[in-house]
Amino acid sequence: MNDPYGRLKARFNRIGALGEASAILGWDASAMMPEGGAASRGEQLAVLAGLSHELLTAPAVADDLAAAESQGTAEGDFWDEQNLQLMRRAFRRASALPTELVEAATRANSACEKVWRHARATSDFALVRPLLEEVIRLAREEAAALSEATGLSPYDALMDGYQRGITAGDVEPVFAAYEHFLADALPRAEAIQASRPAALPLPGPFPVEIQRALCRRLSERIGLDYEHARLDESAHPFSGGTPADARITTRYDERNVGQALMGVAHETGHALYERGLPEAWARQPVGEAAGMAAHESQSLIVEMQACRSDSFLRWLGPELHASFGGAAEPYDGANLARLWRHVERSFIRVEADEMTYPAHVILRFRLERALIAGDLRVADLPGAWNEGFHRLLGITPPDDARGCLQDIHWYDGGFGYFPSYTLGAMAAAQLMAAARLAVPGLDEALGRGEFTPLIGWLRSAVHSHGASLGFQELLRRATGKPLDPEDFQAHLRRRYLGG
Amino acid sequence: MNDPYGRLKARFNRIGALGEASAILGWDASAMMPEGGAASRGEQLAVLAGLSHELLTAPAVADDLAAAESQGTAEGDFWDEQNLQLMRRAFRRASALPTELVEAATRANSACEKVWRHARATSDFALVRPLLEEVIRLAREEAAALSEATGLSPYDALMDGYQRGITAGDVEPVFAAYEHFLADALPRAEAIQASRPAALPLPGPFPVEIQRALCRRLSERIGLDYEHARLDESAHPFSGGTPADARITTRYDERNVGQALMGVAHETGHALYERGLPEAWARQPVGEAAGMAAHESQSLIVEMQACRSDSFLRWLGPELHASFGGAAEPYDGANLARLWRHVERSFIRVEADEMTYPAHVILRFRLERALIAGDLRVADLPGAWNEGFHRLLGITPPDDARGCLQDIHWYDGGFGYFPSYTLGAMAAAQLMAAARLAVPGLDEALGRGEFTPLIGWLRSAVHSHGASLGFQELLRRATGKPLDPEDFQAHLRRRYLGG
Repeated sequence: MNDPYGRLKARFNRIGALGEASAILGWDASAMMPEGGAASRGEQLAVLAGLSHELLTAPAVADDLAAAESQGTAEGDFWDEQNLQLMRRAFRRASALPTELVEAATRANSACEKVWRHARATSDFALVRPLLEEVIRLAREEAAALSEATGLSPYDALMDGYQRGITAGDVEPVFAAYEHFLADALPRAEAIQASRPAALPLPGPFPVEIQRALCRRLSERIGLDYEHARLDESAHPFSGGTPADARITTRYDERNVGQALMGVAHETGHALYERGLPEAWARQPVGEAAGMAAHESQSLIVEMQACRSDSFLRWLGPELHASFGGAAEPYDGANLARLWRHVERSFIRVEADEMTYPAHVILRFRLERALIAGDLRVADLPGAWNEGFHRLLGITPPDDARGCLQDIHWYDGGFGYFPSYTLGAMAAAQLMAAARLAVPGLDEALGRGEFTPLIGWLRSAVHSHGASLGFQELLRRATGKPLDPEDFQAHLRRRYLGG
Repeated sequence: MNDPYGRLKARFNRIGALGEASAILGWDASAMMPEGGAASRGEQLAVLAGLSHELLTAPAVADDLAAAESQGTAEGDFWDEQNLQLMRRAFRRASALPTELVEAATRANSACEKVWRHARATSDFALVRPLLEEVIRLAREEAAALSEATGLSPYDALMDGYQRGITAGDVEPVFAAYEHFLADALPRAEAIQASRPAALPLPGPFPVEIQRALCRRLSERIGLDYEHARLDESAHPFSGGTPADARITTRYDERNVGQALMGVAHETGHALYERGLPEAWARQPVGEAAGMAAHESQSLIVEMQACRSDSFLRWLGPELHASFGGAAEPYDGANLARLWRHVERSFIRVEADEMTYPAHVILRFRLERALIAGDLRVADLPGAWNEGFHRLLGITPPDDARGCLQDIHWYDGGFGYFPSYTLGAMAAAQLMAAARLAVPGLDEALGRGEFTPLIGWLRSAVHSHGASLGFQELLRRATGKPLDPEDFQAHLRRRYLGG
């Protein structure tokens, strides 16, 4: 049977199934696995990754790609065409990396990540420095190989692995403009905040059982269908699993109900994106999400745009009060907003508010770009971090644990990912503005605790496109323009600067 | 590098890792997965099975096996030699089956199993009959192909897949002798039972939370280490996972604490076998368990021999009483024995006591052997079942739901497995007798709730051998003789006939 594209689809279905299996095993490792299973789990995941890489880079793939590209897919269907292009892209990227390099990097990343845990706990950068140097040496080799294969710069080639089609050149002016905006907006937001009454703390404690039930109800209300999903606990909340079987996690703190609730809102946004991907293209490249910035836009539109909105917090307050009792005043929507939208210069990215968060990302973007370019030595990283942090936010980390040691990404070999967080936040604001125009009564619905108008719009404007559109094209179709950071700034002005 | 055996070990490590991944995904499907994940999970498992089959039957395997066999392994090490033989065996069996046949059987089994669920619920054999006919047609094709490759008879070739080295010819006289024993022993056991005071029911209800904690404590006491294990719930209790990461399940019934406790004892026995396999041979054929009969011997020695012994029940009674309160008398060890060692002719295998259980197995063994030989038509199965059941136990199933529809095995394409249950029960009695001789004070230890003497002996006599010894050789080394059904009968005489 001479059907090269059909053969490729069958092959990518297998690759996709290996990816799904790995996703479930990864979820299990974080949410279920006893500690003693770690070594064998590592071996299982390494074997699945190796087999996937072999399937992707087999000589037959090159032949089938060339034949399918010259034949064209059946009737030139748009989805098939995009699928074939994404197959070519996956093949090109995977073939660019020699197996020995991938294996050396996997080993180096794993060794570095282990030592990093101790280094962070003791704020001892010197401990992990030589291992990070090796990780970066190999990441630079990978970047060079990917650069050669893609024609992108080495750092862009890494970024492209997380968010196709976005380069440092696209990001830098956006980030520079934000830096400029923040220098003015942050002191003003702080002054406005200081002039208002202090937030009343929620009384607490918040029994975990009640939080768990609330989180489940919130995620169901947002739109997660538990015939195809689970909510569990893990040290670091995440969204994993597969489109048909979404697995989200959170963690519960008896003193802080906002953390679990807003965390679950965030992960539900991710999970709904996966659930809304086109089922007919399951396990095909074009059936995947459009990239990590697109993914983050979906978690942030649910968490930051919808669930932290005035409308929704006004609805949520009485619900929480009914669950936990005590005085009613702290559960007033305006008080919840003061509590859960508090702007503050702080050292830890994952705890940052939405206005200062981009500063954390901008710093990392510039530093990792310099590390990959060879313009920054690892030995100079702590100093460069602290200096850059001070320039952006006016405070200096008291130690490296609260500085360059705080995030796992680099120590696990992840370079080029950080910009996705802020691109996602910006895209979320832009999509929300478009949704408000397209769907009358969207905020009123949120004020009744109803997400159907918002999620219905996202289903059709974002989720259902899979990876058939790139990040910019997705935004262009959904909002009439490519990424426009102005929408995010307008959102922050409305929320924090009184319009 | 010309190291054919080294290449084979690397290849079988990958095959083993795929098996481990499938085991965790299988556990997840039964214990965790939301229902909506079923279809994609099926695809994931099919892809892993397909890749495993390809790795096992690749042309390079034949070359490497031939080269390794002619070179010999390093210094003729016993374990390496056995490993190589088991590689050859796995290759021979896998290569015997054409891919199309395996795929057709997988589809037919899956289709039949789905319909069987309805058929059993409505006791409607006619509904599933045509699908079972197709399943058996393909199973006979597989058996014929395996027979050709192994030189065994078709049914023996299927049995060999579950318990290497055991044939129907070995089993038939053992089962015939048991049938003879039972005809005399069962009425006597019933008469003795009837002459004794009736068992006092345990008061109950037994809150699930308390049962859960008790089950965990019992399994820990037996020897399960939760750094490498989990205990969860599922509709059908099982033991799964991997040697480094054992996953056992049970189900809780508020009216019946014995079911969960004895179920967990059983699954703990399976899990301890996996945990005790030689770690140095993880993911190699020789590092696996010695077969399904050997596996069942390990669950049954823990459940039936140890946990239902007078000594242990005397210890367990006061523990349960302390947990649940109420009157003390029902928790007396002798009363627990009357409750949990009650002999009764009944229709459902999985609920049968240890004396009548083999009759259920003997019936299935004879019927499936005839089905595979082509001597029994599917249309005649219900009648043959009921007739055979009456001959063995003197009662006739009132419907097919309590007759030939009760077990999933055949409807899912599993033929040749049933004998393992009773071979395991017999081996458990034989091993227990040997353990009592080898380890002084073993029963006294059980009477103090201590399993270390028994499990320590099993570690060295059974678990640590992996698959380096066959079932008979394992028994010969551990007990001084191959399978001897007399030990099981002696056990039953002591326990049910007063010696």
